[in-house]
Amino acid sequence: MRLDGEVLGLRNRLIQHRRYLHQYPETDFEVGKTRDYITEQIKKLGFGEIEILAQNGVKVVIRGNIPGRTLAFRADMDALPIEEETGVEFASLNKGVMHACGHDGHMTVLLGLAEWIAMHRENIKGNVVLIFQPAEETVGGALPMIKEGVLDIPEVDAIFGLHLLPDIPQGKVVMKPGVVMAQTCEFDVEITGKSAHGATPHFGIDALMASCDFVHMLQGVVSRRIPYDEKAVVTIGRMEAGEKRNIIAGKARLEGTIRTFDDKVYSKIKENIIKLLKSLELSHGIRGQYHEVVYYPAVNDDVQLTSKIAGFVDPDILVDIDPLMIAEDFSYFQQKVPGTYMFLGCRNEEKGFTAPLHSSLFNFDEEVLLLGLQIYVNILKNYS
Amino acid sequence: MRLDGEVLGLRNRLIQHRRYLHQYPETDFEVGKTRDYITEQIKKLGFGEIEILAQNGVKVVIRGNIPGRTLAFRADMDALPIEEETGVEFASLNKGVMHACGHDGHMTVLLGLAEWIAMHRENIKGNVVLIFQPAEETVGGALPMIKEGVLDIPEVDAIFGLHLLPDIPQGKVVMKPGVVMAQTCEFDVEITGKSAHGATPHFGIDALMASCDFVHMLQGVVSRRIPYDEKAVVTIGRMEAGEKRNIIAGKARLEGTIRTFDDKVYSKIKENIIKLLKSLELSHGIRGQYHEVVYYPAVNDDVQLTSKIAGFVDPDILVDIDPLMIAEDFSYFQQKVPGTYMFLGCRNEEKGFTAPLHSSLFNFDEEVLLLGLQIYVNILKNYS
Amino acid sequence: MRLDGEVLGLRNRLIQHRRYLHQYPETDFEVGKTRDYITEQIKKLGFGEIEILAQNGVKVVIRGNIPGRTLAFRADMDALPIEEETGVEFASLNKGVMHACGHDGHMTVLLGLAEWIAMHRENIKGNVVLIFQPAEETVGGALPMIKEGVLDIPEVDAIFGLHLLPDIPQGKVVMKPGVVMAQTCEFDVEITGKSAHGATPHFGIDALMASCDFVHMLQGVVSRRIPYDEKAVVTIGRMEAGEKRNIIAGKARLEGTIRTFDDKVYSKIKENIIKLLKSLELSHGIRGQYHEVVYYPAVNDDVQLTSKIAGFVDPDILVDIDPLMIAEDFSYFQQKVPGTYMFLGCRNEEKGFTAPLHSSLFNFDEEVLLLGLQIYVNILKNYS
Amino acid sequence: MRLDGEVLGLRNRLIQHRRYLHQYPETDFEVGKTRDYITEQIKKLGFGEIEILAQNGVKVVIRGNIPGRTLAFRADMDALPIEEETGVEFASLNKGVMHACGHDGHMTVLLGLAEWIAMHRENIKGNVVLIFQPAEETVGGALPMIKEGVLDIPEVDAIFGLHLLPDIPQGKVVMKPGVVMAQTCEFDVEITGKSAHGATPHFGIDALMASCDFVHMLQGVVSRRIPYDEKAVVTIGRMEAGEKRNIIAGKARLEGTIRTFDDKVYSKIKENIIKLLKSLELSHGIRGQYHEVVYYPAVNDDVQLTSKIAGFVDPDILVDIDPLMIAEDFSYFQQKVPGTYMFLGCRNEEKGFTAPLHSSLFNFDEEVLLLGLQIYVNILKNYS
Repeated sequence: MRLDGEVLGLRNRLIQHRRYLHQYPETDFEVGKTRDYITEQIKKLGFGEIEILAQNGVKVVIRGNIPGRTLAFRADMDALPIEEETGVEFASLNKGVMHACGHDGHMTVLLGLAEWIAMHRENIKGNVVLIFQPAEETVGGALPMIKEGVLDIPEVDAIFGLHLLPDIPQGKVVMKPGVVMAQTCEFDVEITGKSAHGATPHFGIDALMASCDFVHMLQGVVSRRIPYDEKAVVTIGRMEAGEKRNIIAGKARLEGTIRTFDDKVYSKIKENIIKLLKSLELSHGIRGQYHEVVYYPAVNDDVQLTSKIAGFVDPDILVDIDPLMIAEDFSYFQQKVPGTYMFLGCRNEEKGFTAPLHSSLFNFDEEVLLLGLQIYVNILKNYS
Repeated sequence: MRLDGEVLGLRNRLIQHRRYLHQYPETDFEVGKTRDYITEQIKKLGFGEIEILAQNGVKVVIRGNIPGRTLAFRADMDALPIEEETGVEFASLNKGVMHACGHDGHMTVLLGLAEWIAMHRENIKGNVVLIFQPAEETVGGALPMIKEGVLDIPEVDAIFGLHLLPDIPQGKVVMKPGVVMAQTCEFDVEITGKSAHGATPHFGIDALMASCDFVHMLQGVVSRRIPYDEKAVVTIGRMEAGEKRNIIAGKARLEGTIRTFDDKVYSKIKENIIKLLKSLELSHGIRGQYHEVVYYPAVNDDVQLTSKIAGFVDPDILVDIDPLMIAEDFSYFQQKVPGTYMFLGCRNEEKGFTAPLHSSLFNFDEEVLLLGLQIYVNILKNYS
Repeated sequence: MRLDGEVLGLRNRLIQHRRYLHQYPETDFEVGKTRDYITEQIKKLGFGEIEILAQNGVKVVIRGNIPGRTLAFRADMDALPIEEETGVEFASLNKGVMHACGHDGHMTVLLGLAEWIAMHRENIKGNVVLIFQPAEETVGGALPMIKEGVLDIPEVDAIFGLHLLPDIPQGKVVMKPGVVMAQTCEFDVEITGKSAHGATPHFGIDALMASCDFVHMLQGVVSRRIPYDEKAVVTIGRMEAGEKRNIIAGKARLEGTIRTFDDKVYSKIKENIIKLLKSLELSHGIRGQYHEVVYYPAVNDDVQLTSKIAGFVDPDILVDIDPLMIAEDFSYFQQKVPGTYMFLGCRNEEKGFTAPLHSSLFNFDEEVLLLGLQIYVNILKNYS
Repeated sequence: MRLDGEVLGLRNRLIQHRRYLHQYPETDFEVGKTRDYITEQIKKLGFGEIEILAQNGVKVVIRGNIPGRTLAFRADMDALPIEEETGVEFASLNKGVMHACGHDGHMTVLLGLAEWIAMHRENIKGNVVLIFQPAEETVGGALPMIKEGVLDIPEVDAIFGLHLLPDIPQGKVVMKPGVVMAQTCEFDVEITGKSAHGATPHFGIDALMASCDFVHMLQGVVSRRIPYDEKAVVTIGRMEAGEKRNIIAGKARLEGTIRTFDDKVYSKIKENIIKLLKSLELSHGIRGQYHEVVYYPAVNDDVQLTSKIAGFVDPDILVDIDPLMIAEDFSYFQQKVPGTYMFLGCRNEEKGFTAPLHSSLFNFDEEVLLLGLQIYVNILKNYS
């Protein structure tokens, strides 16, 4: 897609931002330096309506002179606990931490958008809200930001987000009405029995065995209670039960995830898990508890908004993909206001950018950030 | 053990009785001809106080002239649906039915006892009740006979029974205080789910899968909830679930048995089965029902009575055995009055009597019946 | 869609055919009267190249005067063991048997096509093969007809089939490239253990318990080994194990189905079932056998052919549906030659035609048969 | 039982020994101070043939002047990682370590025996071997001592051991031919699968699920494959599987014990566990490994020797108990030479000695040690 001269003119600034952010990755809510860099840049551009939400998240409000919609753009701030192995000169200086999921790029596009707005300050229609959100990779920063008012004053009409995706070629973009990323739920199950000497199991209540029965009967929930045309995965990835070989296990802890593309399917699975635990309480005499640790709804792109937005780009750059079985808490914003979450292809075999997300080798051609910026600019131009 | 001359004198009568009864075996409660033979013999001896209980069971009361205890002696009347293959000249004339469990012998000893009493009519102390009971092999005739008053008028003080046992040598006898035969329970489980097309299990409730989970979790009851030093077997011997391969099973039926030597262990298992069904109702949404078809308590020989009785025989004929994992409803009599159930060895390698009980080849040396009679006579002489 | 005058002119003939066939439904391969009716009608029209294949299937070859493709059209002949409850005047006269799956309609469209061809005998391009196939509902008549040469002389270039479908409105049609109906496999599993007395399971090999373990571990195959974006259902609809409650089950038999939309998924499931049985042979000592009773591949409409054919009808009558989780042995023809299997909507709320397939109330407006005929006529006109 | 004057005369020495040893408890093979105390006492008595085996075990050989049998007496040396709570003045001075299993008493009896022998040096018949063994509570010191020759020069004819037992009253003793303590086996199972993202289990091999299936099928081994009249417990007391909730578990580790009273039953269970793992390799594709960590055979008192020995004590102090479901590596000595392991009752309600073995409150009346010594003295007097 052809890029505006103004967008192309921001190339160096974008590269500067991206490489700085890449060198100082931070995780979870602990993104204080990242926050400082962003607020500093924003202030330099002369935008003063800055608010810190959800510990280190940043909300920037830019009010236009012409009446129009309030459009929000969101980038995620946090990096991953991965030791970088790309060997690039701007590689992470924070040992064991790396922007391996492209959030450095996402923030850069937003900073670029701020620069572009600064150039057109007088002609901005409506309002623009820039949202820099922490903890996307961990327990979710979207919900606390919403609770603290990120969508409220001014009231947001539509929200946009994007993600780099090495599964599709550089230059291509996904804007797909409907579900594009999975619902996810991370849960713990705690099973409490009663210890006893291993030779006298009848004096105890075997939490280890109850846990195994739980895992076993869980398979039947997926195989028998979910319609064949719904996609669902339930995985118990970790289990720890008992303390010593010759003591009947008094406690067990299981850690799992549920992933679907439909909240109803998720609810059915959750309901069945809770029923299962209740049933094991009856049959085994254990006590079973289900704790939801993290819950992200499915990323569900508003059909009308997304179709409209897709009209602002060259049709030949649009590609379709099956919904991804990974999750994003952008979905929480979408539960409040219509939103579009798009994917920016960054696979480039020639230049060797083929590593998957969350790989210690993940990297991308920074040109792709210009395309991301152009798409946001087009939205501002056509939809404000 | 030395036998009295009077007892030896009854040899031919006993052989006559035994062979007649052996030729006309009958099953379950349907022992009409056997009943007629017995009542006829008893009447011939001049005993008139005869009552028919539990369809074809026979109660004979013989009142003595001298005050004393009321002692009951019980024999079982029914044969088995087995085609005899012994080739003896007095083999069963009823096709497919055979006295393969020695009940012909047990009745013969009781008829012999009646003959002996007839010889000593004037000197009988206390009362003697002879009980011929049907349906020992099937659903139990003891309980209905008790309900119809077999132990009541005159009130019985102690009861005795015996069983031929090819596991021990002819000439040896078991009189063992405590449990000698297992508790048994025959039960059915019915699981009701909901049919649906096989391709849409989520519209149904799969009774077949719930049944498999039931069988699976049942193993844990035995392996984890029963102390290691208790003996218990729970077997589901038959299961039928569903109707067609491509229809989710709406119904399942399981047939099983519980065997233990201790009513508390049995109660624990039963309680766990019922809890299991309740738990499957919760987890699967099925409806589960437990029906007890037959229940026999353990045969538990009264410690004091049995020790006393054991003193009336030569010590060198007494042998000890582990409790047998088979059942007998003589136990119901023992729940009402003290009782001793003894085993009369009938293994005789020389004469070729080695076939096990319930075998189509089972047979025994009729001399053993004289020993049985002698023991009963000794009880009458010493304990009346 | 507008119908040709000639097609409309065949209305009465079609109704006649359909009602006759509806009154005399026959099942499985036993469709002798149906065969006779069809051959008689075909002969009346002057077509003499008739062959009887697969017991009572009918192959009619009509050779045109002008060179062109050989196109085959297939209808299924067999009815279902269902007692009709529609109350129509032309209801089934064969008690307990009913054309509840619309095969009477499918045959009628083919007879209509024969009539239309008879009217245009001189101008027929290429060859037309009419295939009337038995046993679609049971064990499959397609495969034996193919083995006996139904696609061979003349060699068929493309094949077409259609099915009435009350899930979509009358007047609408599905012509969908790719998989439209599931692969199905009906299988039996036989598990052989060793009988023993119920109180001594260690002397036997419990086929019932092994079967329950099989059913349990099968759930893990679906939940863990099949990708979340593949559709698969495995159902054990019937299980029978053991003979008596107090005998360790020596034999068990399970009946099941596998349904997927992809032969690779099916192969993976089958391979896992066989591995499971082998593993149970090791762990339990049983012998496990897997028998495939019926296997239908997925109905997979040739992409090029179907796209082309779809161009011969009004675009506004075309609708899309998700692939159906039911099966059809039309797929066997498609394994040999490109084929299109289409669905003819027959839901008509106004006229009360809403009962599902295989319902004792299933019926349809016969006008729908004219649309089916028109589509076949268009294929002949445009694709011969 | 009446005690000899000489034995009574050793009371104070025994109390001294016991209290010293009680104050300085040590664990496992790390019993260096205990070793030093023992060797010092032995040397003081003038016995010079001392050997250190199995790190800190002590073998003392005392050769008599008169030809006779070589009799060995064994005491265990190690304490438990328990914080003492008895409040006695000679309580443990080693924090967190306590002689809570009476080994201080067992060593004391042996030291007492050495003192008695010293008094009768000239008249000792045959040889006496005193064995002080470490690590009885952990991984077993018996086997290494045997390997290092503890039974060899001079060759031992019979071995004796004793254990304080608060389950029976002070003054009573168990000397029981046959099995008196369980066989025990401690084993680990390692299951190796293949990690994968939690949303794509079909790319991995789920070691967690395979482990749960293992635990489940293990119950069937106990419930179905072991005769009802054998005592067996198999417990998996600890399981750890997987690393993170959203990663398919690539590894699992289970820790368990097998306890029986019969090596054949143990072998059958072990064989079934290994078969189970092999079967899961087939069905799941995992790799399963079974490691035996500790194995103690059943303590099986030699029938002839034990009956003989029992004749050297007053019959009225002998009591019978059911075999204990705990283990002892004294059994390894018994696999080499005939041996008797006896229990010395130490329950004393009046004096408040009722705490069980391994309790932080365990204590006993030191008078009981005199009885133990007397029994050993009687053996020397009568059996040398």
